[in-house]
Amino acid sequence: MAHTNASKIYNLVGAEAVLTEAEDLRKYLTGFSSSFGYVLSDKNGSAFYTDSRYLEAAEKSLKNSEISVKEYVSPLTNLLAGYKQVALPLDKTGYLQYKKLQEAGVSIVDSSPAFKQAMSVKENYEIDNIKKACEITDKAFTDLLGQIKEGMTENEVAAVLEFLMRKGGASGTSFDTIVGFNENSSVPHHETGMRKLRFGDIILIDFGCKVDGYCSDCTRTLLFGDDKKHSEFKKAYSCVLEAHNAVKEQLKCGMTGREADAIARNHLKKYELDALFTHSLGHGIGINIHEFPLLSPKGDDKLVNGMVFSDEPGVYLAGKYGVRIEDTIMLDNGNVVSLTDSDKKLIIL
Amino acid sequence: MAHTNASKIYNLVGAEAVLTEAEDLRKYLTGFSSSFGYVLSDKNGSAFYTDSRYLEAAEKSLKNSEISVKEYVSPLTNLLAGYKQVALPLDKTGYLQYKKLQEAGVSIVDSSPAFKQAMSVKENYEIDNIKKACEITDKAFTDLLGQIKEGMTENEVAAVLEFLMRKGGASGTSFDTIVGFNENSSVPHHETGMRKLRFGDIILIDFGCKVDGYCSDCTRTLLFGDDKKHSEFKKAYSCVLEAHNAVKEQLKCGMTGREADAIARNHLKKYELDALFTHSLGHGIGINIHEFPLLSPKGDDKLVNGMVFSDEPGVYLAGKYGVRIEDTIMLDNGNVVSLTDSDKKLIIL
Repeated sequence: MAHTNASKIYNLVGAEAVLTEAEDLRKYLTGFSSSFGYVLSDKNGSAFYTDSRYLEAAEKSLKNSEISVKEYVSPLTNLLAGYKQVALPLDKTGYLQYKKLQEAGVSIVDSSPAFKQAMSVKENYEIDNIKKACEITDKAFTDLLGQIKEGMTENEVAAVLEFLMRKGGASGTSFDTIVGFNENSSVPHHETGMRKLRFGDIILIDFGCKVDGYCSDCTRTLLFGDDKKHSEFKKAYSCVLEAHNAVKEQLKCGMTGREADAIARNHLKKYELDALFTHSLGHGIGINIHEFPLLSPKGDDKLVNGMVFSDEPGVYLAGKYGVRIEDTIMLDNGNVVSLTDSDKKLIIL
Repeated sequence: MAHTNASKIYNLVGAEAVLTEAEDLRKYLTGFSSSFGYVLSDKNGSAFYTDSRYLEAAEKSLKNSEISVKEYVSPLTNLLAGYKQVALPLDKTGYLQYKKLQEAGVSIVDSSPAFKQAMSVKENYEIDNIKKACEITDKAFTDLLGQIKEGMTENEVAAVLEFLMRKGGASGTSFDTIVGFNENSSVPHHETGMRKLRFGDIILIDFGCKVDGYCSDCTRTLLFGDDKKHSEFKKAYSCVLEAHNAVKEQLKCGMTGREADAIARNHLKKYELDALFTHSLGHGIGINIHEFPLLSPKGDDKLVNGMVFSDEPGVYLAGKYGVRIEDTIMLDNGNVVSLTDSDKKLIIL
């Protein structure tokens, strides 16, 4: 798999040199995961500077790529000697580093817009990784259903799910798995804990995994037995599912994130549930679990082919219940394709 | 558990207002995990500003604390209206944010030294969390040993280990678990993959988990059957274990990180293995898996009671083998206490 992202970014930015340190952007440029290093591109090509912990693995990984591997020797200003202008991703550049380079007399320009533009539209190899992560996610969820039992803690349900994803080939989770039982489902970012599962509980599960550094993201809400007390929840569930599906049906290439968000928000408004939809419809998914585009009332990004993002309307009544139904979806040839796609009818275990 | 870290930091910094956004520092100040928010402290007290996703949970979590919870309304400059001076952690402050506040006419001072000083010496409740994480780590490793079988992939071994930690009560891993079979053990930051376990393989496992946001960190290296080909590895193993134990025996309060690192490095030098010890001896462990103090040839930090850090000498021969033996340890009443402490004799499964 030949990564040409370093030259792509270099050409988009148009600066004398492009210097990148942020971990996610380094992964994007090199395809190689590391916790330390710099990528430096100029008219002669690109080099990845890292320390002894990564040299051997980086050389192996970047053998046939456009990027050479070199050992990093501090200070950073040595790397930049001879350049008059360097591009940094300003939204991921620390104040101290900026100041140091500025004091070294280098003129600094911003590479963030180039990264945002390039990373939000996925290459085929990126989509392949996300698809694999989504397949593992779906299969793990389906396999989980047979293993949920009364008395399990939220932590145990998360443990089983994460085990199934790991076993399926994932390198880890996209984020800390959220499992919320009953009233805990009303907290959109509930911290999974030791609450035990009881008959009649709502179960909200928000989870995802990584394949070669690329994320999946999925949420399902279900019932553990039907104690007939959840008529309000069930009504909300069907409204949220309608809103989720309306987005998949009505979202078109060229719409803004704001317009996509409005599809779900207006749908929930019909049922007077829009005030309980307290977050955005979705976010881009890639190396980062949250990236561009933004599907929210503030989302100006245009949605185009090759973008991968979440469709996750939700409704939350504090202390009572929450419903969120989320798939990782993408725009392909003008159509929405659902990359996670396990059953979304209300499951009653 | 009453967190008083916000007033502790406010008093240490001595600025008119202290504003903190970074996720780890926010967790330290509030004890509450969130992906968005600001903590603002001044002479009247501290407030945690966050968005609708976290309000309900934050109010519950901070009910009896010194910190009030408020809904965040952008822009940030509104929060700071009326202050002439504000402290930010400059090593975790983005250039763009610094510039915005500077342009708003606020005088900016650095809160990083206060955070570094306060966070490197742990409070009792922090040590309790780390101890719990270490106990779960040890138990999971012991339970894992009975489940390792020929043909398992590195990924599967990681999956079982992570499942056992989750089931034991961990909220997640401290970092992506590293499992390296045989020659993969020679890559200090090997990416766990689909390599299958064969008779005679070395197994290197670097792993840890989180309890209420606090990390553990542990590495073990073992043999899966003894095919008698690993005499060089076995020799290296006993030297690394000696170096690991020498640190535990000789490290004293008041030493610098450099002096601690030298204990292990000098020990390996006796066996002419110091050139293969290609990383630092250790790092502080807390909310972050890597924090202060730094135990390396560059470590100026003084090691004092209440500090928690790793003791992890290692030796790596590219393409052949690697050995690393790591425990999370702490200084308590002048003595080293090993918080992870599972068997370190060479295990041959």
